[in-house]
Parts: sequence; C-alpha cells; structure tokens
Amino acid sequence: MNPVVLPEAPAVIHLASDTMAACCPQIAQALYQQSFLLTAPSYGTDAETTAAQQALRQVLEAPQAEIFPLVSGTAANALALSAMTPPWGTVYCHQAAHVLVDECGAVEQLSGGARLHPLPGANGKITADVLDMHLVTAAAGSVHQMPAAAVSLTQATESGTVYSVGEIAALAEVCHDHGLLLHMDGARFANALVTLGCSAAEMTWKAGVDVLSFGASKNGAWAAEAVVFFDPALAGGFAYRRKRSGHLVAKGRFIGAQLQAYLQDDLWLTNARHANALAQLLGQAFADAGMPPVWPVQANEVFVILTPVVEACLRRIGVEWAPWSNESGDGDMARFVTSWATSEADILLIAETLHRLSREG
Amino acid sequence: MNPVVLPEAPAVIHLASDTMAACCPQIAQALYQQSFLLTAPSYGTDAETTAAQQALRQVLEAPQAEIFPLVSGTAANALALSAMTPPWGTVYCHQAAHVLVDECGAVEQLSGGARLHPLPGANGKITADVLDMHLVTAAAGSVHQMPAAAVSLTQATESGTVYSVGEIAALAEVCHDHGLLLHMDGARFANALVTLGCSAAEMTWKAGVDVLSFGASKNGAWAAEAVVFFDPALAGGFAYRRKRSGHLVAKGRFIGAQLQAYLQDDLWLTNARHANALAQLLGQAFADAGMPPVWPVQANEVFVILTPVVEACLRRIGVEWAPWSNESGDGDMARFVTSWATSEADILLIAETLHRLSREG
Amino acid sequence: MNPVVLPEAPAVIHLASDTMAACCPQIAQALYQQSFLLTAPSYGTDAETTAAQQALRQVLEAPQAEIFPLVSGTAANALALSAMTPPWGTVYCHQAAHVLVDECGAVEQLSGGARLHPLPGANGKITADVLDMHLVTAAAGSVHQMPAAAVSLTQATESGTVYSVGEIAALAEVCHDHGLLLHMDGARFANALVTLGCSAAEMTWKAGVDVLSFGASKNGAWAAEAVVFFDPALAGGFAYRRKRSGHLVAKGRFIGAQLQAYLQDDLWLTNARHANALAQLLGQAFADAGMPPVWPVQANEVFVILTPVVEACLRRIGVEWAPWSNESGDGDMARFVTSWATSEADILLIAETLHRLSREG
Amino acid sequence: MNPVVLPEAPAVIHLASDTMAACCPQIAQALYQQSFLLTAPSYGTDAETTAAQQALRQVLEAPQAEIFPLVSGTAANALALSAMTPPWGTVYCHQAAHVLVDECGAVEQLSGGARLHPLPGANGKITADVLDMHLVTAAAGSVHQMPAAAVSLTQATESGTVYSVGEIAALAEVCHDHGLLLHMDGARFANALVTLGCSAAEMTWKAGVDVLSFGASKNGAWAAEAVVFFDPALAGGFAYRRKRSGHLVAKGRFIGAQLQAYLQDDLWLTNARHANALAQLLGQAFADAGMPPVWPVQANEVFVILTPVVEACLRRIGVEWAPWSNESGDGDMARFVTSWATSEADILLIAETLHRLSREG
Repeated sequence: MNPVVLPEAPAVIHLASDTMAACCPQIAQALYQQSFLLTAPSYGTDAETTAAQQALRQVLEAPQAEIFPLVSGTAANALALSAMTPPWGTVYCHQAAHVLVDECGAVEQLSGGARLHPLPGANGKITADVLDMHLVTAAAGSVHQMPAAAVSLTQATESGTVYSVGEIAALAEVCHDHGLLLHMDGARFANALVTLGCSAAEMTWKAGVDVLSFGASKNGAWAAEAVVFFDPALAGGFAYRRKRSGHLVAKGRFIGAQLQAYLQDDLWLTNARHANALAQLLGQAFADAGMPPVWPVQANEVFVILTPVVEACLRRIGVEWAPWSNESGDGDMARFVTSWATSEADILLIAETLHRLSREG
Repeated sequence: MNPVVLPEAPAVIHLASDTMAACCPQIAQALYQQSFLLTAPSYGTDAETTAAQQALRQVLEAPQAEIFPLVSGTAANALALSAMTPPWGTVYCHQAAHVLVDECGAVEQLSGGARLHPLPGANGKITADVLDMHLVTAAAGSVHQMPAAAVSLTQATESGTVYSVGEIAALAEVCHDHGLLLHMDGARFANALVTLGCSAAEMTWKAGVDVLSFGASKNGAWAAEAVVFFDPALAGGFAYRRKRSGHLVAKGRFIGAQLQAYLQDDLWLTNARHANALAQLLGQAFADAGMPPVWPVQANEVFVILTPVVEACLRRIGVEWAPWSNESGDGDMARFVTSWATSEADILLIAETLHRLSREG
Repeated sequence: MNPVVLPEAPAVIHLASDTMAACCPQIAQALYQQSFLLTAPSYGTDAETTAAQQALRQVLEAPQAEIFPLVSGTAANALALSAMTPPWGTVYCHQAAHVLVDECGAVEQLSGGARLHPLPGANGKITADVLDMHLVTAAAGSVHQMPAAAVSLTQATESGTVYSVGEIAALAEVCHDHGLLLHMDGARFANALVTLGCSAAEMTWKAGVDVLSFGASKNGAWAAEAVVFFDPALAGGFAYRRKRSGHLVAKGRFIGAQLQAYLQDDLWLTNARHANALAQLLGQAFADAGMPPVWPVQANEVFVILTPVVEACLRRIGVEWAPWSNESGDGDMARFVTSWATSEADILLIAETLHRLSREG
Repeated sequence: MNPVVLPEAPAVIHLASDTMAACCPQIAQALYQQSFLLTAPSYGTDAETTAAQQALRQVLEAPQAEIFPLVSGTAANALALSAMTPPWGTVYCHQAAHVLVDECGAVEQLSGGARLHPLPGANGKITADVLDMHLVTAAAGSVHQMPAAAVSLTQATESGTVYSVGEIAALAEVCHDHGLLLHMDGARFANALVTLGCSAAEMTWKAGVDVLSFGASKNGAWAAEAVVFFDPALAGGFAYRRKRSGHLVAKGRFIGAQLQAYLQDDLWLTNARHANALAQLLGQAFADAGMPPVWPVQANEVFVILTPVVEACLRRIGVEWAPWSNESGDGDMARFVTSWATSEADILLIAETLHRLSREG
C-alpha cells in the first residue's frame, strides 16, 4: 500500500448531520483488508455477511432473528414497513418522524401505497395514550378507510430524545392489543442504547418491537444498515422485496465487513458514547449561555433557538448546523449533531465562544 | 494502521461471476484514504462525488450529461428505465437480458408498472430488423395495449458478446424513428469498450444511446454505478426517483471515491483488458479441447457445454462456474466469468487440464 | 315490455347517504331506451358518449375540455390527481376530504405513491391563507421531501358547505403562484352550483380550477362520473391511466346515456335543487328544535349532534343516518343527506316529530 | 313512462366485438324496475347484490364462495390476479391472452408489479405439458427471478376455442403440484359452458380452478362482472383491493340487478346459445365458401383469412369485423364475434353472399 496521504483538515466544523462523518478507522481498515480476499461468494452468501448476521443476533440476544443487510436507512425503513402492512394499510408515526418527512415517500413507493399517519407528541415521541385513542377511532372504520397495520417509532427520535424501555413497552402493548406490528427506526440505535444503559434486547424485542431498522451508517460505517425480523415468520418474501427494489448488493461482503467491525469490541457503543458525550457538553454550553436546548439532550443531537449574535459568532469560527423547523410551532431552530468524528476540541471551542458571548452580553 | 493480515487464498477458483471479485487495490486504497477526511458534506454534495461526475463526463465526452451515482446495478437499470417510460409503457429488451431475467421485477416495481417485452436474437443481441418489425406491429395498437416507450440493450450482452458501434447505431435509429428512447445497461461497459477499441462516446451518445447505466462494481469497485443522462432534459425528477427508492446514499463520497479511483489512470480499462484477455485464453483452451464456446467470446464471459468428464476434472481442481440455460434451446451450459481478480495461473491450470484431457480422450 | 312491478316502498327513511338513492326516472328511461339500439361502437367511441361529452363541454362553456367518463367517483378523483402530480408529489386537501378519509388509499395506489397532506380549516374548507403558509414551508424542501404538486378541494365539502367563487379563486391563485394545479372533487357539483347560483364555468375554470371530477351518481345517475381537463395538455396519457386501472368500460354508452339524460333539460339542477331544499327544511327543523346544525347547511347535508331522546324518536319513525366524527373534535354527530329521491313528506314527518319533541321537552 | 322511441336500426352489421351489443331486454327491464325502489343500502350491501351473489353461488354449486361484483372485466382480472400473486410473482398465461395483450398493463398496476409470462400453444390454449416444462425451469430460480405464483387461462379463449374439462383439470393439477393458483378469465364463460354442456361447477372448482372472473357484460349485461373466490381464504383483503382501485361502485344494486336478471331463468345460457349458434352458422358459411376458420369455432368467435374480393363484398353489405393478428405467424385475419344481439338474418345474408361469391369465383 502507498503511503497514506492525509487529506487536509476541513476548516468547517460540520455539525449539521452525523451523515457527514467519514467511516471510522476500525471499519475502514476492515473494509480495506477485505479487498485482499480476492474472491468470495456474492449476493450476501459470503462469510463476512454470515458473521455479521451472527454477531448482530448475539448482540440482540435473538438467535432466531432474520437479518437483511443493506446500504440505506431509507430503504431499511421503507422495506421493513412494506413487510408489516398491506399496500392499503395505515402506519402510524410521529409527525416529525424521519420516515414521514425526510424520505420522500419511500414508504408509499416501496409498500405499494400504504399511508403514514402522523401523530402529535411532545419531545418527538408518540405516546401510548395518543396512539390508543387513534386506534380506537380507526377501529370504527370500514372498507372505505385504510386499516391500521403498524406503528413506527424512531429511536433516538428526530428531536434527539430517547424512548424509555417503559415507553416502548407501553406502545407495543397498545399495538399488539389492536393487532398491529411495531417497527423501530434505529438509525441512531446505538446513541439511544448507551443513554438507556439497557441491553439491545431490552430496548427491542423484550419490550415488544417486532421489526428493527438497525443503523450503522450514522455511527461510523460508510453505508451499512440491517433490517431485523425478530419473528422470522414476518420475513417471508423479504428477500424478494430487497432484491426487486435494487437493494440486494452484489458484493454483499462490503456491508458484512462493515457490520462485523462495527459490532466488534463494542466499537458501536464506544462511537455512540463519544458522540453523546459531546452532545451533552454542547447542550450544557448552550444552557449555560442562556439558550437551553428546546428538547432534552438524550442522544447526539442538540436543538437550540439561536440569537442573531450567537449565530454570527458561531459562523465566524466555522460552525455549520442544520436549520430546523417543525409544525408544532417551536419556531426556527438550529440542529447540531455530533458523531464519532466530532472533535472534543471543536466542541470546547464552541463552548468557550458561547461562554465569552454570555459574559459579554 | 495495524499490520495488514492477508486472508488465506481461497482454495476455490471462482469463475461463476465477476461479482465475486473483491474491490481492486487502487479503489480499496482510495476508499481507505477517504476515511481520513473526517467530515464532508453528505447526500452526494461532496467533492469526491463532484469529481467523479466530472471525470465520467470527460471520459464520455459529454459535458452536459447529468450523472447520478448509486450502489446497485439493478437499481441503476430500473430507475433509468423508469425515467424513460410512462408506467403504462413497453420497454423492449433481449429475451436473455439481465434486466428481464435477473432483477426480480425491479423495472416493474420502480417504474410503477411498465412492461419488459422480450425480443429474440442470436448471440444475446437484439437486431434493428427484429426491433423494427415489433415496433411496426406495436404502432397498430390502441389504448388497450401498452405503447412502446424504450429499448434496453446490454453491453456487453448476457451472452458475453459485444454490440458493434454500427449495431448500436442501427438500433438507435429504429428507436428514434419510432419515438423511443435507447437505454444501455453497461454493467460490463468497460469489457465491451476495450473489445471495440472505440471511445466511450462513440459507443454511447454518438451512436444514439440516450441513457446509460454505467457499471463499475463488476470491474473492480465494491459498489459503484452511475446513471448517465446524455440529455439533461430526461433527468428531470430523477433525483426524486433515486431518493424515494432508497438509493440516495447518505455518505455519497463512499461511491464518489470509488468512481474517481476507477476512472483514474485508465484503471477501469486496465481491469477490463485483464479480464477479457483471460476469457480469450479460457475460450481458446475450451476450443482447442474440442469444446468451442457457444457464443463468440468478446468480453469476459465464456459459455461452454461441458462433457461429464470435463466437468468432473474441473471440479477436482477447484473450479466453480455458473450453470446456465436459456429459452432458445441451446441446452445446459456452464458460464465462466473472469474479472480483474482472476489469476492467469488459474486459467493456465484449467487450460493445461483441458489439454491433457483432450489428448487422453 | 312487461307491466312494471313496483317494488314496495321501503319502511326506512334512508338519509345516511345520497348514494342510497336509485337512478332517477329520466335517466332510468334513457338507459332503458338505449337497450333498443342493439349494437353500437364500444369503449367510449359511441354516439351517446360523444353527445354527453359535448353537452358537458357546453354546460361548462369549455369547448376545448378533454372529458373522460367513468363509473366511480373514487376512480375519478384518484385518476385525475394521478395526472396532476408525479408519484413523489404532495397533494394538499382538507383533513376531512373524501379523497383522504373515504377512498381507502386510491390516490396512493393509482398515482403510484403520491401523498395526501391534510390541511385544517373551518366548515370543511381549506383557506388560501393556510394553503399559502404550508406551501411556503414546503418550498424550503429538498430532495428528501415530496414536492407540492396539487390541491384538491371538495365542492360541496364533506361538511355540506360550499366554497364561494371568491374562495375558489383565492385558492387557485395561491396554487398557481406556487406552480401547483387545482383539482375540484365535484361529487356534489350540482348541489354546490345551485347554491351559488353562478355558472358552472364561473365555479370552475373561470375561478382557476384545472381539473374537475364531475359527479352524477349522487345526484340521480346509477354510476356516471367524468374527469374534465380544462387544459387538454394535462390530459396526455389519461386514456391509458383510465384503461390500465380497469376504468374504461366496454359498453361506454351506458355511461354516455346517463350523462346525456342527466344534463338534458336541466335535470341535474332540478335534482340538486330538490335535495338542497329538503336539506334546508331539515336543517331548519333541527334548529327550531334547539339543535342547530354544526355546519351551515349549504348543499344537501345536515350535521347535527343528537340528544339521546331525539335519536330514539327518529329511529322509531324509521329514520336512518350516518354516524359522523372528525378529528377537529366537534364530537359525535349524525349526518343526514337528502337526494333527488328524498320525499318531502318524510322530511316533514321528521320536522313534525322534532317540533313535538321540543314542545314536550 | 313516456312511449318508447325505438332507435333506428343501424345500417352496420357490427361483428367486430360482442362488447358492441346493447344490454339485453330482460336485464334492461330489471334495471329499469330497480329505479322504482327509491332508496336502498349502498356499496354492495343491498338486497339485489346479495341475491345475485346467492344466485351465482347456486349456479356454481359453491355455497362457500366469496363473490365480488364489479363493472369491468379488466378490473376483475387484474384484481383477481393481484390476490393470487405477490407483487414480485410471475403469472403464466397464453401469449394471446386478453389479460396480457388487451388490458394495458392492468395486472402490472393493480398487483403492484407482478409479471405476466406468455406461453405458446395451439388454438389459443396453454397445455399442461408446456406449463409444466416452464414451471420446472422456474423452480430452478433464485431471489433474482420472479417466482411462479399463478396461471390464468381464458375460457373461452381469445381464439374462440374452449378448454375441455380435462384440459382444465390437467392444468390445475400442474399448478397445484407446483404450489400455484389457477385463475380463469371467464369473460365469455357462458359461451364456453354451453359448448361443453357440463355444469359450471365442473368447468371451474371441480376441475381445480381457484378464482374466477365471471363475465356478463359480453353476454347481455351493460356492465356486470364478478370475481369469485371458491376458497374464501383467498379473498382476504379483496374488499380493500376493490375499493382502493375505485371499483366498489356506490350504488351496488346497479350491478346486482343486472347479475340477478342475467342468471334468472337461464337467460345467460340462452344468450350464449344464440351467439354460439350464429357463430357456427357463420363459420360453416366461410368453410363452405373455401375459407375454413383458422381455429375451431367453439364459442362465439370466427377467425378467417379473407380474400380481397370477399373483404370488399362483405364491406358492401355493411359488415364490420376486427382485424386480427398474432405473433404465432398465422397472418392477418378477420375476427367476427356474435352476441345475443346478432340477428340470424344478418348472418344468413352473409352466408348467402359468401355462397354466391364462391359459385361465381
């Protein structure tokens, strides 16, 4: 291998999204080494894929689970839900859910027409009570209405909060009482898990989650996700769903290798802890400067309403964030997202800047 | 970086598919280095993606082309065709085309219902004459029939043959005379190109190709393809098509870096020449042993009808191939596919084995 | 013809829906006579269909309009909208719109995945202001969001109210300012029209409506609707949309004959005036009895919150209605719908009953 | 009722299609009388619909069958098949099947992407042998291929021939051996049935048919079809399929009344016998004149290759037919279709003309 030429450090402090982080070193290296195995079976029948599936089953304490790796979180969610609802079914989710507002109708397309029904809820969460009320209403429906089929919750949520195990279990109970299935969009699964401090099993199937979109891309991989069916009976036909939507990658081991490295030696948890800790630091810095985060900082995201002065100062030191708005009327916000690649020095620089500003202000 | 642990060489000589080859060293290294650029814009707005798009435009001599990277050849084909036909349109292709027989209805799903109409043709190719005859018939149709919208040709074909520039131009002329668009499935684009010895522009838009699925995965990348619209007017809405089918990868530079390395220093052509040369060697070895390939060996695939004795001997030395059949009644065949990763020594071993067998036989 | 055997009058006073009314005599007779023309061209190429299209063009003062008859209002709406949005587009409508809550996802299916976005609004109407606000927000979107494509308003609304010409024009202006198309679900077109007292042209294209679902089934036909494209350029491909969804009826003249009779001698307006007048009568009776209708009675529907006593009395005299609820929290209501077939005597009986009850109460 | 004004008899002898025939008198009258029952429950919950379903169950000797009336044969076929295949499945049919060549991709749309696979076969029929061969091949498939799900046969066929009970049973056996379901497109069910002289049960479920599209429109109704599930377990979700595609007609008794009259007093069989007898007469006339029908005349269709002289003479006496071609290379033909409305005098006129021509020629 040629000597590594390090790219120049970016002048920008990228905090708009954790999708901006590169692949982390351990996964990058695993992928690189994989290229030395000149040939191997394709279409997900290789040893790396099998090992990754096995590792994920162990992590989830779910030896029966059917696991389908793919590269895209949007695809993971839409394909998972397509297996949980008929094309004429309704899937309930929070009104700010990624699957609803940021995936351009992938569920509608890949399910063949199912509908996402938004539910309100504080802190980006749907509650068992609100869900139950809506399902009771829906139960009065006829052939003219799309029957309720599933619920999708996002863990961590789009507001950077985390459902407790109890909250998940309560939602699952309502779902199952009404004959619905429960999906978890785990694009930031690890970030939520290290916050709760419970086991992955406790946060999923033990609480009643039926199908999981397990994400690794936002927490250190290039492009690696997996759809997990805790009940294998639900996975019938999923291999076809993945293939016909173009999501069965030919050289499956490049996903397998990423997932394997991701799960090895608790890398995924280490990455998530790093990101979460920096989010805490950042959230505290904003709070100390008189700008408490809009929602509790429970994972790797901080939402703040910036004053023009703060906005200008942050821009001057190179910080980039995502403008954020929502229908619940919380006003225009700034979203800051940390990742495995966020540097503590950068966050400390921001904290210091905010501290100085608040003293001056 | 830790010392590289080389995986053991596989005992098997994998010749069933070029999808079994790993990522080639140059691309693997480019991807690895990319991980050192800790953060970068996401969703395809990064520098690597832009550079890759620019490089591909140069290679194709098509400065106006709109280029959309993605990870899957199946998705590239189905999404490209979805932009070339209404949901009620007919797309003509060869009866053995990958898009028809190996992509599990991806065109049907991602186009919202369009139909693939198989055409017969020797050597895996559709001819301008046969196409014209069918289009004349179709023109007599009414609202009860699905109107002809596009033609998809595979270059190189599923039979390992290559359309000449003249053949492509003749097909394009028939297409355009009837108001149809011409798509090229270029999953093995480089293999075809080095055989023809012409420019990429001559093999595509100069001959009348409207939209190209440009493949890199089978020729050295992990997962890198691109849909190329030579006429930008056809690309309207494609960004939405890619997103809503889950094919807009978050960390776009993962694909961008692969494509950039693939096109740099003629790596893609070097890889293809290697694969094609070994296919020639293998084809000749079969011919010399009295088993001439079923179709002309013009790219990186060799199709042979094996005798039981030959089959047994090849298995004994670890060779694996793909059983192959088709509806044109050519009988059960074996498909051997070479790639950048195929070792000349392995092919020479096979040649020697065949030679010995034919002398003994 | 055999002597007509009159079916027994039903004991029930059907006011749950105007879909319960039979075909009215004039249309029934036209259809019957049509059966004496033993043969005629099929698939909508017959003289009745042509005449009906011509009559509707005259009524609408729209000589260029493209008109497609079909049998189902759900199909008319979903197919019309499928021609007004890409499969990844957003269609705005009132949160109580029939197209959203009573057509079981027909838009999602027949459009190939488009999304209906509910808007709030008093009296079952969306307002130009609310629409504008939502479109401004949507305009900030990216490829991750489904772009705004069209608006569908229901005239008369699901709340039995009627948009004024000014309200329609205001909505149309917002639509067109943002590049959207405006659809009118005219399942109860005639009921709204006679209320406004304007011309059909003034209520549609002159106010900015681009595409109309013109309904006759709820106002006297058995099964006759038409999709009207005021701009023929929007109708491209619609013939295929109708056919491939199974909505091109073989013996088209049975729809043509219904529509022709419907429009002849102002039958459609006479029927609507009858229904509306009885709704007024009924609404007034409820109001006089201390139960003012929840929404203004402007067409042929009356929504009332019944007391248990009233409910019991109405049931005793054979009245049937539809239970009604909505998300805006107006509580459980009863919906009463009048039609051409509603008898004045029945409504007077109800009025008298209510009157007696209120005096007794 | 006003005095009936009889339309003038058409100068044209319409033999291009049985869809050109009007509604027959008995059905027309039943429908007319239905209009005197001023109100009735809607959406298929009315007494006529229930009675029609019951009558059809009796005719089919299938008391458990689930029966769904609708107005369109294309919809009946596409919706029936959508319930018999996953969206990624393959449905086999004859290469000339109506469902494949004359329904504009309705199966593809309403099934969400399933594929129709054409099979060759003499006289418009697929045979158990050919089917078996294809299924054996398909069984070798993987996730890359669309798995075989169902077979659709047309009875009577598009060539005017009729499957014997034995042929149907043989096809059904092959289907069920491979885990496939068997669909019968019975658009001309009655025409086939009177030819076979067996019971409707013997021609369907007793021979192994799982789902039937029962057609009445081509044999005397205006617009009345029914999808019949002999196994109710297959009908799950079909009510939603019908609704969301816009095929649940509001005033369901419009269809119910037609179907009831159709089945009463063997009207449907009488109509079919009339049509078939005239087709026999016509076929014999062509044969006697030296132009034997291309396919055996077994139902109500006659296919002939016309000489220019004959063509000119028939045109002169006002005969209209449908030009017909097919891919099996039988050349350009003329299709003549008789119906309940075809007059014997017209056919005798044609016969005489042909006779005179052949004596002169």
